[in-house]
Amino acid sequence: MKTIQAVTYPVHFQKESYQELSNILKIKNYSTIFILVDENTIEYCYPKFIPNLETDKTIEVIEIDSGEINKNLETCIGVWNVITELGGDRKSLLITLGGGVITDLGGFVASCFKRGIDFVNIPTTLLSMVDASVGGKTGVDLGVLKNQIGLFANPEMVIIDTDYLTTVTEREIKSGTAEIIKYGLTYDVNLFNEIKDNKNLNINDLIFRSVEIKNEVVLQDPKEKNLRKILNFGHTLGHAIESFYLESEDKENLTHGEAIAIGMVCECYMSSKLLNFPKEKVIEVKNVVLTIYNKINLLKVDFSAILELLKHDKKNVNGQVNFVLLNDYEDYKIDCKVDESLIIESMEFYNL
Amino acid sequence: MKTIQAVTYPVHFQKESYQELSNILKIKNYSTIFILVDENTIEYCYPKFIPNLETDKTIEVIEIDSGEINKNLETCIGVWNVITELGGDRKSLLITLGGGVITDLGGFVASCFKRGIDFVNIPTTLLSMVDASVGGKTGVDLGVLKNQIGLFANPEMVIIDTDYLTTVTEREIKSGTAEIIKYGLTYDVNLFNEIKDNKNLNINDLIFRSVEIKNEVVLQDPKEKNLRKILNFGHTLGHAIESFYLESEDKENLTHGEAIAIGMVCECYMSSKLLNFPKEKVIEVKNVVLTIYNKINLLKVDFSAILELLKHDKKNVNGQVNFVLLNDYEDYKIDCKVDESLIIESMEFYNL
Repeated sequence: MKTIQAVTYPVHFQKESYQELSNILKIKNYSTIFILVDENTIEYCYPKFIPNLETDKTIEVIEIDSGEINKNLETCIGVWNVITELGGDRKSLLITLGGGVITDLGGFVASCFKRGIDFVNIPTTLLSMVDASVGGKTGVDLGVLKNQIGLFANPEMVIIDTDYLTTVTEREIKSGTAEIIKYGLTYDVNLFNEIKDNKNLNINDLIFRSVEIKNEVVLQDPKEKNLRKILNFGHTLGHAIESFYLESEDKENLTHGEAIAIGMVCECYMSSKLLNFPKEKVIEVKNVVLTIYNKINLLKVDFSAILELLKHDKKNVNGQVNFVLLNDYEDYKIDCKVDESLIIESMEFYNL
Repeated sequence: MKTIQAVTYPVHFQKESYQELSNILKIKNYSTIFILVDENTIEYCYPKFIPNLETDKTIEVIEIDSGEINKNLETCIGVWNVITELGGDRKSLLITLGGGVITDLGGFVASCFKRGIDFVNIPTTLLSMVDASVGGKTGVDLGVLKNQIGLFANPEMVIIDTDYLTTVTEREIKSGTAEIIKYGLTYDVNLFNEIKDNKNLNINDLIFRSVEIKNEVVLQDPKEKNLRKILNFGHTLGHAIESFYLESEDKENLTHGEAIAIGMVCECYMSSKLLNFPKEKVIEVKNVVLTIYNKINLLKVDFSAILELLKHDKKNVNGQVNFVLLNDYEDYKIDCKVDESLIIESMEFYNL
């Protein structure tokens, strides 16, 4: 399969990727290779990966606990201490093998260790393949606030091998599907239509096209001044809902995609009220979302806590929440202000 | 006084600086101005600074505990939480007002908050004026390992106002003097001679020349591939000694300059053994150091712990410690390997 050249690094696809990895290992002559995994990827992905790693250097595996709840600075401190104890130096390489928590946190850990060591990302979930593989965003959460601490840093390369998708749950695949829907609604409606029609879906093609879109967007607007903001579609309210469920002890967590799917329905609704986004398309998006994801009942009593979390969104300026809304499919408007009453109305619309 | 244009930002000197700060505040239209201080700088420096700050924006002061012991990720997490609670967003500005702990940690905090906000450094100690003001290094310690976590990030500007030096102790002034000696030995022996002769010393001129030298070095080698390594002269062994005293509960901490001064004496000694650095100059450097700093008795029983700490130096590659040594004043050699026995011998020479 082809390679996509991202801003300053390549995204390689499928088994040919490993030859590229071997090449870079030869050229860069790293001192030690650290591989960051969690308890799932060490069991299911590491055995698939390790036969492909051609090197005579020392390999050290560092395992952290899986889950968004562990994507924090305490985990980073633990990893930095282990790398230090194992003699990591500026010529060390960190390979991340896992979902978004592993790739985001690992990229941050590598970028700050001794002011920066090289890293290679190998996303193993659909979400991290289509979302985290391009764009150079690294980071961790601060309390329940997602990706509050982090920086822009580029891996040496990204490897997308869809063989790893056989190791994850159907729920995780659905989580990643939400991001593909987002690319469809904001940039290429064919993607959305394919998922809507749900016939002969070729996951490899969907991933390749998603990465291609994200790369085009990021290349045009690396620092998120304008176009790149479309990647936040569904995420402004979606993140607040995700954070709310994460911090609610009596509620089961939502996956990122489940929360973002709700966010997209609500933000389509806002778009129909504030812009000219057609009502029937709001219905269409909601139907597709409810075909894929279980309906969540957003409780009225929780709305104020969700609105409170919205105030900490990274895109806010001067305390003002900024939404990306749609005039139509593939036609966005950035920096939209939305009254609290309409945000609540949109959640009530989702609940209907 | 003049302005020095560092890599991507200016270093302004004396009272004229504040006009430059006012200008940038007008242009950038920040949402909130956070000022990072410690319990000393809030009492002694803040009152000098605040009348110079022309803005109608909200100003929030964040105080942390002073001292190297607090230059860690726990302190960062505290500051990030406070900024978050106070509604900090991507258009916030962080002004650091303090010594190296405040400027290094503050730069790191700013660079990682929501993937980076602007910051302005106002060093208030001699050490931070001549050392931390140029070069874009930010970071914090990991345990006793200095600056293990951090990154290269540039402030919007640096303000050097020597009026703040009236607020610090003589011991701190001496700590900064060690860095000026370093610039003298490695790059411009006039600086060293002025300090050696100790007649009509003009501290403003010494600072200006030191910043000028550091800037020339960093401009030529921003990523520390070659020339910039001279800035580590005295620091390789010096950092290990500093870390050792920091972690020893029964010993009083050394200042950075006190430790680096010992490191310079020892590394001059190594230079005389491995290169052609003249013996009489080793004696000369030792005499100048002992005129300024109290003699420390490095105990034989502590040597192995100090050597152990050397192994974690950031400049090490493949477990090999790399020293910058001198062929002569102003004539350096990078990446020198030194046997443990000679390192010990050099500490015994210092002890004589």
